[in-house]
Amino acid sequence: MSSPVPPRTDPISSSLTPAELAGLLEFAVHLADLAGAQILPHFRTRLLDVENKDRQGFDPVTLADREAEAAIRREIQRTYPTHGILGEEHGLQVGASPYTWVIDPIDGTRAFVLGQLHWGTLIALNDGTRPVLGVMRQPYTGETFLGSEQGAQLRRGSQTTRLSARAGVRLEEAVLCATDPLMFAAPGLRPAFERVAARARAVRFGGDCYTPCLVAAGSSDLVVEADLKPWDVQALIPIIEGAGGIITDWAGQAAWEADKVVIASGAGLHAQVIEALNAQD
Amino acid sequence: MSSPVPPRTDPISSSLTPAELAGLLEFAVHLADLAGAQILPHFRTRLLDVENKDRQGFDPVTLADREAEAAIRREIQRTYPTHGILGEEHGLQVGASPYTWVIDPIDGTRAFVLGQLHWGTLIALNDGTRPVLGVMRQPYTGETFLGSEQGAQLRRGSQTTRLSARAGVRLEEAVLCATDPLMFAAPGLRPAFERVAARARAVRFGGDCYTPCLVAAGSSDLVVEADLKPWDVQALIPIIEGAGGIITDWAGQAAWEADKVVIASGAGLHAQVIEALNAQD
Repeated sequence: MSSPVPPRTDPISSSLTPAELAGLLEFAVHLADLAGAQILPHFRTRLLDVENKDRQGFDPVTLADREAEAAIRREIQRTYPTHGILGEEHGLQVGASPYTWVIDPIDGTRAFVLGQLHWGTLIALNDGTRPVLGVMRQPYTGETFLGSEQGAQLRRGSQTTRLSARAGVRLEEAVLCATDPLMFAAPGLRPAFERVAARARAVRFGGDCYTPCLVAAGSSDLVVEADLKPWDVQALIPIIEGAGGIITDWAGQAAWEADKVVIASGAGLHAQVIEALNAQD
Repeated sequence: MSSPVPPRTDPISSSLTPAELAGLLEFAVHLADLAGAQILPHFRTRLLDVENKDRQGFDPVTLADREAEAAIRREIQRTYPTHGILGEEHGLQVGASPYTWVIDPIDGTRAFVLGQLHWGTLIALNDGTRPVLGVMRQPYTGETFLGSEQGAQLRRGSQTTRLSARAGVRLEEAVLCATDPLMFAAPGLRPAFERVAARARAVRFGGDCYTPCLVAAGSSDLVVEADLKPWDVQALIPIIEGAGGIITDWAGQAAWEADKVVIASGAGLHAQVIEALNAQD
């Protein structure tokens, strides 16, 4: 399926022209905005309208997830009717073209339900060989992280900041971020995770799609996750790589179909983590 | 030191008139705004100015913490020169009056350093018997949670929302939030925490001062913490109690000098957690 990825020397490739890629990236930002408009009325519903919760027999996050994915799908079908769509809520719709949008309306549903802030909408476009652009939008904070081979950005209000991962951080200096200790419950995963944790400066749980974007932003260095689906991962790849960071599976191979990923701010750190994950005790 | 607190029947008392209390609460919000202005330039410094980091020989969070606490202290001394001040960075300054401001410029420094969102400025006013008002401000998201015996609010931009914890949630339905599993490393703490975790619906790590405010907001139900200092706790008490929630130490006693706290959305849930924490295996 996947071949080894030599990090930082293998650019994101696609047959799109730069102008086409830039146009599709703005369309993905537009899709994320549409999703946010569906999601926000369901966030912290207790604050807004207690009755709302049970009105349609679904909890707020399920409603928000479904309405946001439906809005995204409608807009894609209207604008790019030949494109395929793979979404968490409504599955795969095969398209006539090689392009497939890969979407997770709310990544971090547990954080969302608790009223926390580390969740977001993930949107990727896969050209049939890999994701060529990615967007992560947190509508409550108004942040949009986006990336492609043309680079990575954070947009918030009228501000646009070019993102750049920081190289040169060693595992001993890095805080290891992971969403939940229970992700590593499957056989063999916990000892591998613990080997990395033992060498890191500290471990911090909680994050979902938000902490990988902080590696792109240069404020975090290391995220190790397991138990992922394609829609949890694909949008993050162009953001991380566009900022000069590295994202692979636990074997150091392409991440886009992986269920376990390593996200590192630099090549040396990435190599240390891959070695620790795969060391024999 | 502390006597048993019968939750929900023991109102926050003080000798202040309602108008005085309201005025002091607005002053605390003003202090939090001053702190935020000092803190924000140091948040995600990589995005703003890489060189800034080592300019004065301190890391960004230490600089932000010190500058924010200095700004708060100056303003208190100017406005209420007889009041005492207890702050994390600069210690206790005893005042001529019984009132003491208890401040933590950045609660959640690790989250801050990583660029995450669950941190904030904590400001309480203690009347010599207990904290009578509390403010938690997250300057990046623009949120101010505040509380007193007059109630609890979330302010953001032009929006003000009255906060109300939700009663009637049972431990079996509640997600248990805690900042870090390592908080429970001291002898005897982990088994107690695990007894609560085993009965909860799920456990979620990461949060610091942010998740307790979500109990006040009615979107979370349960936070259990350990290894706290007075400036980590005191501002939260009027916010939680002002929203009808419950905050005590692990024995069910007054929380304001406690290093271990339970924050629950309702009395039944609180009783279940206190029982589980203190059960003999």
